[in-house]
Amino acid sequence: MAAAMQMLAVCCAAVRGPVAVGSAARRAGARMTTVTTAGAPVSTAHLGAALRAQFPALHQTVYDGRPLVYLDSAATSHKPLAVIEAVREFYERDNSNVHRGAHALSIRATNAYEAARDKLAAFVNAASRREIVFTRGATEAINLVAATWGEMNVRAGDEIVISEIDHHANIVPWQLLAQRAGATVRYARYDASTGGMDAEHMISLIGPRTKLVAFAHVSNVLGSIAPVHRLVAAARAAGAAVLIDGCQSVPHMPVDVQALGADFYVASGHKMCGPTGIGFLWGRLDVLETMPPYQSGGEMIDQVTLEGSTFASPPGRFEAGTPAIAQAVGLGAAVDYLAGLGMANVEAHEHDLARYLVERLSAVDGLALYGPPRGEARAALAAFSVAGVHANDLSTFIDQDGVAIRAGHHCTQPLHAALGISASARASLYVYSTRADVDALVESIVSTQRLFAQLGG
Amino acid sequence: MAAAMQMLAVCCAAVRGPVAVGSAARRAGARMTTVTTAGAPVSTAHLGAALRAQFPALHQTVYDGRPLVYLDSAATSHKPLAVIEAVREFYERDNSNVHRGAHALSIRATNAYEAARDKLAAFVNAASRREIVFTRGATEAINLVAATWGEMNVRAGDEIVISEIDHHANIVPWQLLAQRAGATVRYARYDASTGGMDAEHMISLIGPRTKLVAFAHVSNVLGSIAPVHRLVAAARAAGAAVLIDGCQSVPHMPVDVQALGADFYVASGHKMCGPTGIGFLWGRLDVLETMPPYQSGGEMIDQVTLEGSTFASPPGRFEAGTPAIAQAVGLGAAVDYLAGLGMANVEAHEHDLARYLVERLSAVDGLALYGPPRGEARAALAAFSVAGVHANDLSTFIDQDGVAIRAGHHCTQPLHAALGISASARASLYVYSTRADVDALVESIVSTQRLFAQLGG
Repeated sequence: MAAAMQMLAVCCAAVRGPVAVGSAARRAGARMTTVTTAGAPVSTAHLGAALRAQFPALHQTVYDGRPLVYLDSAATSHKPLAVIEAVREFYERDNSNVHRGAHALSIRATNAYEAARDKLAAFVNAASRREIVFTRGATEAINLVAATWGEMNVRAGDEIVISEIDHHANIVPWQLLAQRAGATVRYARYDASTGGMDAEHMISLIGPRTKLVAFAHVSNVLGSIAPVHRLVAAARAAGAAVLIDGCQSVPHMPVDVQALGADFYVASGHKMCGPTGIGFLWGRLDVLETMPPYQSGGEMIDQVTLEGSTFASPPGRFEAGTPAIAQAVGLGAAVDYLAGLGMANVEAHEHDLARYLVERLSAVDGLALYGPPRGEARAALAAFSVAGVHANDLSTFIDQDGVAIRAGHHCTQPLHAALGISASARASLYVYSTRADVDALVESIVSTQRLFAQLGG
Repeated sequence: MAAAMQMLAVCCAAVRGPVAVGSAARRAGARMTTVTTAGAPVSTAHLGAALRAQFPALHQTVYDGRPLVYLDSAATSHKPLAVIEAVREFYERDNSNVHRGAHALSIRATNAYEAARDKLAAFVNAASRREIVFTRGATEAINLVAATWGEMNVRAGDEIVISEIDHHANIVPWQLLAQRAGATVRYARYDASTGGMDAEHMISLIGPRTKLVAFAHVSNVLGSIAPVHRLVAAARAAGAAVLIDGCQSVPHMPVDVQALGADFYVASGHKMCGPTGIGFLWGRLDVLETMPPYQSGGEMIDQVTLEGSTFASPPGRFEAGTPAIAQAVGLGAAVDYLAGLGMANVEAHEHDLARYLVERLSAVDGLALYGPPRGEARAALAAFSVAGVHANDLSTFIDQDGVAIRAGHHCTQPLHAALGISASARASLYVYSTRADVDALVESIVSTQRLFAQLGG
């Protein structure tokens, strides 16, 4: 049990309230890494329990007093007090519009907004703070690239290589761009043997006509992890640009955009402990500088005359109008929070949870688990089907036990078509999740199965 | 003084702390309307003082203990506790993604998000809740219309009629659309005699080639109020569509989009007591239904296949990806707050402030006031220049007295070119503003003038 024991000092000074270490986790006897929370060592396997006190939304009961078991973090994460307070404090103290004023509050608001950009740049190791463009979220970031870089670079006869396992946000903008440009979208297949995207197929699709290769770093349904370096190398060899959807990676593991070597990397703040309404596009500065504006209006201009207008340099060029100021500040606080935990620790904790989740779900009779086979690397999420119980019914019934999962196509209809199903159930975990959450999930699935078997029999 | 005295019951149950009624306001002896705050009658002239306790950001000192005098509300408004708490409570209790889940929190989050749409629809008297599309703000709302309705309807040789007094957000998107389409933008002139847009000139520009007429309901620099009904009638007669920028009207006066008769109306939440990162497009449903999607991804689709995709009906079609959920909820709380005050009361209060602001500024030697002449209707804001003191210097110096105004072109470079200046100072007031704020402004301007005269002499 203590084979891989390793002491890590983790900044958890903000931990409030008692640290409850789940007995279920103790019983499980997992391989553990140990971190220090407010002086006391806490294994990464127990990190979730140690952090829960900081997430107010986790401490509630639903329906008839059932404690909430939140397993929908891939849809959105809960927010630590540090983030909630940062937003409140902004509104109560620094609230002002940015970039345009010369008074105390506008200076403070501008500094806070731009400091958030600095934090994010450091968090993903951007070469320059100017490479971080704030957007509403990953969806807007991808649309921005499609509407600017895409319109400028994709022409009739060109090809865009994506994958059928991807989120609609990384499919539909390319379909619409291809329609406008007379280009073609080519789809890498789902590979049932690896439970992920068929990387060899994607590489085989990349050729001289390929202008862009776009894929998710981590699948939001399968939990599979893309072989980024091989895919980027293949795209580079063909002279194609690369966009990576980091929605399920940035919140969960260390991400170094320079090391990954893509041109664009996008993520959503609300999935990484931050507020809704904010996310970012990272783009290589030399690429951003070639791109025309996206939205236009205030902030993004240089000169406006009746004859025409000129535009600011990146990132301002891409941030028209009053930005989501308080949300950027909140995202900055989220980045501080995650960086304080250490993303390697977050990743280790989630690896442990992922292993436990797959172990427990695999043991449920009649449960079909999608994604990488047991023992293979995957994110701390799992989509599955239960024989005899439709995913929507399953989520509705286990919700009555307080267990919150998601059911449906998870914005991946083509993947579900490839899986031969219309819907799946998905449980997704995060830094505040525990093995006890997984135990509650499995218990509720099994009791729902029994209920349906009785009703059906 | 009591000629127009009128008792109005205003919902101010949320007033906390002592209600300080400014003595300066008392001295001024203005025409007053009386509202009831927590049982005690308060004149609309004193509304600002009565409400201040609800706005935490107003209660601070800057620099050497100078009480903040915030006169930059046209850039962004402060937020009442009701809004700040609504956002916090969302994150602490209902936080979830919307529309996609079947668990307790996702149902609550969806209900809260859609309830905000209902509130906004009622607030502007939309014919249907489906006519309200959430956007990041007015800038995105205008860009949405330009990229969808505009791309579909504006062709080579067509004309778009706007005004040189408008905000860049209502100029640059039309310039770029016209460039793409081969269309022409025609600009209604600034009229020095009325201190507003030359409405006759705009009407004269509207003709058979006009596809769209776009203008601000209230100018963000001049405070002038556009003759909406005449402009809409002229556009209708020519078969042109109409977009109105309501950024400086929706927060400050009753707005009835059906009565105004335009096709599109846009506003920003952060200027109307709401959070940053949220705003809305109102569009006539029959028009919205003809429009193609703007951004694409999750939420806005009907079916996604490898061959192509189909899209949801409005408003979902225009809300791709995870929306700004907490911000929409916060905007709903802002709408509740303003509706509780009564927009007619807000307007009466601001009329009184506008009159006082113009009266006091007009009495300052060497101060040139832009906008409608004294005695004419205007919003509670004023842009001005002070002889011998550059606007930027003025704002920097009076900031040291705690007086926060804005200096620059206020995102209206063409208007400033028409005024023959590169920058102006602007003081802008809101529901929480008082005559004492205006007194502090004037006092600080005069002392800055004296200082510069001494330095110059």
